[in-house]
Amino acid sequence: MDKRLDKRIERFMNWMKREQIDLALVTSPTNIYYLTGFYSNPHERFMGLFLSLTGDLLLIVPELDQKQAIEKSNLTHVFGFSDAEGPDGIIRKHIQVSHNTRLGIEQGNINYKTVLWLQRLLQIENFLNLESGFNELRLIKDETEIKSLQEAAYFADRAVEIGIQSLQSGKSELEIIAEIEYQLKKQGIERMSFDTMVLTGKKSALPHGKPGKDKIQEGDFVLFDLGVVVNGYCSDISRTVIMGNPSEEQRKIYTIVRQAQQLAIETVKPNIPIKQVDLTAREYISKAGYGEYFIHRTGHGLGLDIHESPSIHEKNEEIIKQGMVFTIEPGIYLPQIGGVRIEDDVVVTDNGVHVLTTFTKELLQIGK
Amino acid sequence: MDKRLDKRIERFMNWMKREQIDLALVTSPTNIYYLTGFYSNPHERFMGLFLSLTGDLLLIVPELDQKQAIEKSNLTHVFGFSDAEGPDGIIRKHIQVSHNTRLGIEQGNINYKTVLWLQRLLQIENFLNLESGFNELRLIKDETEIKSLQEAAYFADRAVEIGIQSLQSGKSELEIIAEIEYQLKKQGIERMSFDTMVLTGKKSALPHGKPGKDKIQEGDFVLFDLGVVVNGYCSDISRTVIMGNPSEEQRKIYTIVRQAQQLAIETVKPNIPIKQVDLTAREYISKAGYGEYFIHRTGHGLGLDIHESPSIHEKNEEIIKQGMVFTIEPGIYLPQIGGVRIEDDVVVTDNGVHVLTTFTKELLQIGK
Repeated sequence: MDKRLDKRIERFMNWMKREQIDLALVTSPTNIYYLTGFYSNPHERFMGLFLSLTGDLLLIVPELDQKQAIEKSNLTHVFGFSDAEGPDGIIRKHIQVSHNTRLGIEQGNINYKTVLWLQRLLQIENFLNLESGFNELRLIKDETEIKSLQEAAYFADRAVEIGIQSLQSGKSELEIIAEIEYQLKKQGIERMSFDTMVLTGKKSALPHGKPGKDKIQEGDFVLFDLGVVVNGYCSDISRTVIMGNPSEEQRKIYTIVRQAQQLAIETVKPNIPIKQVDLTAREYISKAGYGEYFIHRTGHGLGLDIHESPSIHEKNEEIIKQGMVFTIEPGIYLPQIGGVRIEDDVVVTDNGVHVLTTFTKELLQIGK
Repeated sequence: MDKRLDKRIERFMNWMKREQIDLALVTSPTNIYYLTGFYSNPHERFMGLFLSLTGDLLLIVPELDQKQAIEKSNLTHVFGFSDAEGPDGIIRKHIQVSHNTRLGIEQGNINYKTVLWLQRLLQIENFLNLESGFNELRLIKDETEIKSLQEAAYFADRAVEIGIQSLQSGKSELEIIAEIEYQLKKQGIERMSFDTMVLTGKKSALPHGKPGKDKIQEGDFVLFDLGVVVNGYCSDISRTVIMGNPSEEQRKIYTIVRQAQQLAIETVKPNIPIKQVDLTAREYISKAGYGEYFIHRTGHGLGLDIHESPSIHEKNEEIIKQGMVFTIEPGIYLPQIGGVRIEDDVVVTDNGVHVLTTFTKELLQIGK
């Protein structure tokens, strides 16, 4: 078995001991991947990894994933269940618990119906939470992880480049997305971290806008927000460009966002509270008079999940540590004019920050 | 407000009355869309629609979705919350409950952490389940829904066509996927129902295999499984083709799967148990000697979600009704040779079935 995985399991079991958790049931695909090397999204089917303090690991998967689970995980105990039977029988047979067993689950990654089912099946009332254990483990990235994140960031840079090269008045948002994803898949990228976003004109003012057939027009902001997955690790980049010449206000808000983002990046270093990163960007934008148009947190942790710890918001007192990886992405969104967001992925170093995404942040005027 | 939506809300409230549910909290994006016309995936953020029996509807969304929520939903009460504040304040201010309030949630669509948070916030211990209400409502599709499903199926047919046209020995699975999605996005398709699957050679024997850089070779099965979303509604199609000439066993299992699938389709009509559809395919494949290689249910319901009610498995005693929409997708998976799956989307009519996906099921020999 992979030594990195052994180490992770050992560290997780040490955490379990400290928390006096006897048995852990891990159900989130990324945490299962983190501990076993096997990744699958079982959708509405059950998938679970049981870890006991005695060192037994037992992976239960839908029958149709069993072969891959055995191959990828290298675990001795991998059980598959059919759709008609479900996992109940396997769990009853192999999992010994008593009413006193302190069982941990991922409270935020398991639905309530599954919890009710487990309560009946195992006759346990209360479930402890494993999430802080996984957050702790996954919060600091090791060198191999950072290498994957760096590679994912490299392809995010390329993706923006492809998108910008294919920009043209009259083309639709979806056409640009088609071009980006086509080129990336041709280069061997298996999947994007989330639905690629290209928003134009007033739609760029919607941080969660949905790309569509809207045509790009002269004078529009075009906002890219996208990422790719490499070895399971996600990147996330945003860039905003202008079709032709910017208006005075467009140039103004672009310059403010760019400066706010730069200041936030420069704030990052170990041993300061995370909120300081958010507050740096927020205060700069507020002083410039656009505070009410910056309507989301400054960033989020990045790793196997596109959104993970830490959350870069103005109330997060957590302390920044070397090896954390997160996004820095302030924005200003003016309903009548459009929005600007600039986003990079950063790794905390021993005395500052290394920026993984490197695509230019100059205001590019397309077609000029 | 849209009359179809009014009608749905009325029917849902009638269901709530029958079940003596005073207040419903809907959190699944597709159910919120079904009732309001507003769709968003808030990822780890909270999004909830409160419906009370007094007829009050209150939608709570992350601040960055508020504008779109107001526009799309036409609801009077739409509240946004910032990342730093969270939704607690809004809920405390606007939602009146007592310890006796019978509150319904979607047990399978809400995570345990959110339930624990609601228990603290609202001081309610037990939550009833809304899911059977939504299943009941959404199980039977109306004409407008079937029109969207038909259109989604049309593009699924086109997608397979594009994929097959671009097949060539030496190309990778990902290259074929790139081609398919590029052409579809160019035609205005916003998103696929799930990650497009093109699997070649032995990998076609993995029902949940992950496409990669594997090169297509002469003599390989190539299995397509994909779908597109139109107006929120999903299609789902599988076809399997052969590169060059099939071996005897490849031709044999293809013929068995095709016949099993055809027989299962012909079984469908109102007023018989759903399990009969599964058993028809299963028994045919078993009698042909390949029962142990058909390792999943025969199909699943299809609609706003790619997997919804009904589940087409051998123990489902539910009765088939006109207007149900589901997939029929038996398969045989031989680890050393590869897999065959053939999948169509069907609508139950008054006396049988209408097949939405129409791409040929002849065994296509590519390059011959």
